[in-house]
Amino acid sequence: MNEFDLINKYFNFPTVYADLGIGDDAALISKNKNEFYAISVDTLNLNHHFTNTSDPFYLGWKSLAVNISDIVAMGGIPRYALLSLSIVKPDASWLSKFAKGLRACAKKYNVELIGGDTNKGSPSISITIIGDVLKKSVLRRDKVQVNDEIWLTNEIGYAALHFHYNKIPQKNRQAISSYLKKSAHENFIKPMPPLNFIQKAKNFINGAIDLSDGLAGDLKHISLKNGFGAEIYIDKIPMHKWFRENNFYELVLTGGEDYQILFTSHKKNHNKINNLLKKLSMTGAMIGYVSNKKRIQYKLHGQPFHLSKDGFRHFG
Amino acid sequence: MNEFDLINKYFNFPTVYADLGIGDDAALISKNKNEFYAISVDTLNLNHHFTNTSDPFYLGWKSLAVNISDIVAMGGIPRYALLSLSIVKPDASWLSKFAKGLRACAKKYNVELIGGDTNKGSPSISITIIGDVLKKSVLRRDKVQVNDEIWLTNEIGYAALHFHYNKIPQKNRQAISSYLKKSAHENFIKPMPPLNFIQKAKNFINGAIDLSDGLAGDLKHISLKNGFGAEIYIDKIPMHKWFRENNFYELVLTGGEDYQILFTSHKKNHNKINNLLKKLSMTGAMIGYVSNKKRIQYKLHGQPFHLSKDGFRHFG
Repeated sequence: MNEFDLINKYFNFPTVYADLGIGDDAALISKNKNEFYAISVDTLNLNHHFTNTSDPFYLGWKSLAVNISDIVAMGGIPRYALLSLSIVKPDASWLSKFAKGLRACAKKYNVELIGGDTNKGSPSISITIIGDVLKKSVLRRDKVQVNDEIWLTNEIGYAALHFHYNKIPQKNRQAISSYLKKSAHENFIKPMPPLNFIQKAKNFINGAIDLSDGLAGDLKHISLKNGFGAEIYIDKIPMHKWFRENNFYELVLTGGEDYQILFTSHKKNHNKINNLLKKLSMTGAMIGYVSNKKRIQYKLHGQPFHLSKDGFRHFG
Repeated sequence: MNEFDLINKYFNFPTVYADLGIGDDAALISKNKNEFYAISVDTLNLNHHFTNTSDPFYLGWKSLAVNISDIVAMGGIPRYALLSLSIVKPDASWLSKFAKGLRACAKKYNVELIGGDTNKGSPSISITIIGDVLKKSVLRRDKVQVNDEIWLTNEIGYAALHFHYNKIPQKNRQAISSYLKKSAHENFIKPMPPLNFIQKAKNFINGAIDLSDGLAGDLKHISLKNGFGAEIYIDKIPMHKWFRENNFYELVLTGGEDYQILFTSHKKNHNKINNLLKKLSMTGAMIGYVSNKKRIQYKLHGQPFHLSKDGFRHFG
């Protein structure tokens, strides 16, 4: 049973006052006439999301960045964060570096840490993020429309390449340049949610989701969950050429932790989005369509491509 | 180093936009002309706040109740909650009971669960709570005034009695009635923050704090931290007679997890508060004064009473 099934089965209590409850990247509650607050929480646990040897600076960065990603995916601007940190015992050097990384990310995205709580326990970092979202341009998963184009920000696959590096056969590993290895590591430890791009593009976007679990898994949440399907052209997915040359498409499609944004848009906005990408010197591409068939079809060089698994699952 | 020192040393980044950052029961951010949102997060960890044998229904209740307590202490009305739950593997029976307890507490206090996140990891429950607070009657720790009366809602000591039951010498334990034992257990597993009373009393209150760490420890946060002190009359503290008859005052003063509210008020409101307690058929009492001496003095039967320790600490 995966995260979504668990939440839906046990914790999807009905909401009356909230503008949006469980089921999207963030919940929405009223702020003022024109804005919602978007709120989300994400937790990183020892031995599941980080290890005792994880660099505390980048762990601080990533803990906040993965939450910022949820607000970005709602079309919002992250504003405030609360930290709940569990540690076995205080380690001044670790705490100082972790706080520096958290602060660096907070500064980069202009987020204020407004609440904190430390607890004795198995190491765990839980962050709550709060952002502003304009009501007229909130990006909800359920606003996806049939025939929408499906877009992706930046290149994906790097974080998964870093995470699974040791499992890659020697013959493929030899072809990984030191530059690619470094980029993969950097993308894994220091995700950079595309806030600026989504803010500028939000009026062209129908629905959006952040890629935390992997393209294949997250795609389901904005297609199948809405009663739609999708047709994805793997040739169009922005990725480093190593993945193509080594036929590692599955890693790109199912590897998580990219924290890029998958969004859908009416085809009339196609040129506007491409122009915006160009203006911001950003990679990104239209990778397929929302279809009215209730399944996700991948195509590679014009032929059907079948996945052997469907993305990272929290609970296998 | 305790929780407050840790947070202050590493995570007390300056805030510009938030109306109140780290350092109170909850942070405050703007909502509308008349209201703030108060936001707080609390985490319960396995083997520190609960065990593998803890009843999941009451664990669900308590996880939310301890967060509601933070909003109550700000003079707010809890509205929304987000859950981040870490578990080793999904156990349908446990999850179902936990969700029922959480839902029972949510229903009792009219709180909506609007966000959720489940993760693989050492069992841990992190809840974020959001409440409405009227700007004109927000209760902040730093609004305490010299010569304020110090009040307490309900009786305290029950939760600590339950928690430390096995450490109580046999001769004292014999005097614990089955009724007291049951009350102690109920107070520990099912805290009931006094929302209704505080909402009705808030205009008479200067500063407030919830008793999570114990009266002695929490008292420091609204007296010493403000540059003040306090004089506390132990004879006036509402507690079960067993504590008095067995001279177990220290357990009452330093035992945590009561989730009652300690508040201060100008003496002109004394009768109004007493009348309100009577009207609501509630226990509660004025237990001392805020003094301009920078120390906390306890008196028992008119004599100084010295504590051997100063309340529960997260990190000894």
